[in-house]
Amino acid sequence: MTTKSCIPLCLGLMSLSACTPSGPVAAPKPDRITQVSVINALMVGRYDGVMPIPEMLRHGDFGVGTLDHLDGELTVLDGKVYQVRGDGVVAEVGPDRSTPFAVITPFDPDGEFPCPEVASLTDLDARLDEALPRKNHFVAIRVDGRFASITLRSVRRQEPPYKPLAEVVKSQSVWTREDIGGTLVGVRCPAWVAGLNVPGYHWHFLSDDRKVGGHVLDCRVRDGRMRYDVCRDWLVKLDGSAGFNSTDLGRDLSHDLRRVESSRGGAGERGR
Amino acid sequence: MTTKSCIPLCLGLMSLSACTPSGPVAAPKPDRITQVSVINALMVGRYDGVMPIPEMLRHGDFGVGTLDHLDGELTVLDGKVYQVRGDGVVAEVGPDRSTPFAVITPFDPDGEFPCPEVASLTDLDARLDEALPRKNHFVAIRVDGRFASITLRSVRRQEPPYKPLAEVVKSQSVWTREDIGGTLVGVRCPAWVAGLNVPGYHWHFLSDDRKVGGHVLDCRVRDGRMRYDVCRDWLVKLDGSAGFNSTDLGRDLSHDLRRVESSRGGAGERGR
Repeated sequence: MTTKSCIPLCLGLMSLSACTPSGPVAAPKPDRITQVSVINALMVGRYDGVMPIPEMLRHGDFGVGTLDHLDGELTVLDGKVYQVRGDGVVAEVGPDRSTPFAVITPFDPDGEFPCPEVASLTDLDARLDEALPRKNHFVAIRVDGRFASITLRSVRRQEPPYKPLAEVVKSQSVWTREDIGGTLVGVRCPAWVAGLNVPGYHWHFLSDDRKVGGHVLDCRVRDGRMRYDVCRDWLVKLDGSAGFNSTDLGRDLSHDLRRVESSRGGAGERGR
Repeated sequence: MTTKSCIPLCLGLMSLSACTPSGPVAAPKPDRITQVSVINALMVGRYDGVMPIPEMLRHGDFGVGTLDHLDGELTVLDGKVYQVRGDGVVAEVGPDRSTPFAVITPFDPDGEFPCPEVASLTDLDARLDEALPRKNHFVAIRVDGRFASITLRSVRRQEPPYKPLAEVVKSQSVWTREDIGGTLVGVRCPAWVAGLNVPGYHWHFLSDDRKVGGHVLDCRVRDGRMRYDVCRDWLVKLDGSAGFNSTDLGRDLSHDLRRVESSRGGAGERGR
């Protein structure tokens, strides 16, 4: 529909080809954000993968999520898929894995600005709210920068019968790194996605050397470059299983979700 | 923090707003239901069209909605778009019109069954709930049948400044026809779409001779054939306007919506 800036998209497709070798693949739609399943399904413990990673990559080259069995934090950056395991180890994800929940888009920036020094993640979110007032659209945000400190977490692989996510994060691993270069991979959803996705900001991190990463609980940014991509199309790919259809997704789990997203409690420093 | 380059964004929005590009058009995705905007935007009075009818038709050949200026009930059946005006007149819709809210899919039935005699719309919905227990998926439903009676409504074209939908339907037109053949065009949404679409069933009607139609408030089915199409992909096409982005879509308007969807109150028999 738009012809703006096809270069990032083309690059994204080149990297996609490594993961989806068979047959022609349609280009992911620019300005479309795609999510696999809905957050309340994850909240109640539906951790089995519902979409293979190669299929997920058809929808973009940038995003956040988790792996089957809730096996760590999943980050998609420049078309590569990284897992941050519960012990903090970062690994590239093979095509044999799948995801129970992910949010992904072809990152095709609409604009950029320098990221000033900010003292906390809350401060970063507030500054972004000022700079990007389109509250009813989805926004993918990439921050390449230098971080005075960053606090991350991941979760350990689960086995059935699965416990709810709010239970699992009680034993999450949390670690802090100082003076580190890397990339924040973020998604901002409108407030009205409650129950379906995470309202507000959802940030993952990968260090420049791809050895440190995780779900971001807090950070201090020294300086950086911030790029954003506004998405007006929102595609939800629902789980096709009978179990999904019999799951009560209508409960208000927003209190639990806030705890899952931002609690710094956990099993303490376990990462590397 | 100031935005350095908003120009690509502006250009992108300009080309989006103009869009009905010529050239090859991709087939709509099977088992994908697409909605234009969200129901709460319509509830608060956002009646300006946000998608041209030809673009809407790229997403399917079957669906329900309304027209710009809330100019009656819109029904898409076999790829044709019909307007039922506030005075009950049914007309085909030209390519110059647009929609502020619609739900559409390429109707590709997954199954069918005979529709038994049912005494009310509530009864029809209850029987469908029994027959189609996939509560967390979207379902498009087509009933071709003979109706002992059917009660329909439509709304009159509005002019800015627009009143909220709950106000407008107070002066809706309601009419009942007996012993009439036609088609129910229905969409069932999961309960968790509240605020974004209509939870449960949403039915429109067109008579076999395409002279009677509207939003269905009640009906008695004599007999019919029911076909359904389960949709696991849900695509939401958000309005790109600044006005949309500054609209509060998070309010709980479910009470008003139920009244809008099912109230039989109105300006009385005005139709033909």
